[in-house]
Amino acid sequence: MKKIEEVLGDVVRRRRGRFGLSQEAYAVKAGIHRTYASLIERGKVQVTIGMIQKLATALEVPMSVLLRDVEKELGGSPAPKRR
Amino acid sequence: MKKIEEVLGDVVRRRRGRFGLSQEAYAVKAGIHRTYASLIERGKVQVTIGMIQKLATALEVPMSVLLRDVEKELGGSPAPKRR
Repeated sequence: MKKIEEVLGDVVRRRRGRFGLSQEAYAVKAGIHRTYASLIERGKVQVTIGMIQKLATALEVPMSVLLRDVEKELGGSPAPKRR
Repeated sequence: MKKIEEVLGDVVRRRRGRFGLSQEAYAVKAGIHRTYASLIERGKVQVTIGMIQKLATALEVPMSVLLRDVEKELGGSPAPKRR
């Protein structure tokens, strides 16, 4: 099962893509370092609520919408193999 | 203006209260130290997404609902300056 940080990273990457933003442009928009944006999308960092706020602002959605995406992916689908 | 950590702390404290849980009982339920639960409610710590998940689980709401509460409080009403 994916870690929640990884799921959030997927959600962010997907929404950024839909937005047509490169990781670099996105990082600038979010006011974070490009390296950090990459770590977030790969689920490598413990993202804090303050950071979630920055990510959501850059993606122009409420934080709660990002988290809803995460919840769907975690719990939602009849995805097999949760252990 | 309140920091987002403080707003989250208020939201958690309020929901915990509605639930009739003491801070101690809540901490046990969330699987965190009581001291840490207190720091969270006072907005003194950078809460990570993993921690938000624990808090939400203990409050029996989706994370997105907690965040929606936070958004309402941050953006919403012209509420009279709570200190």
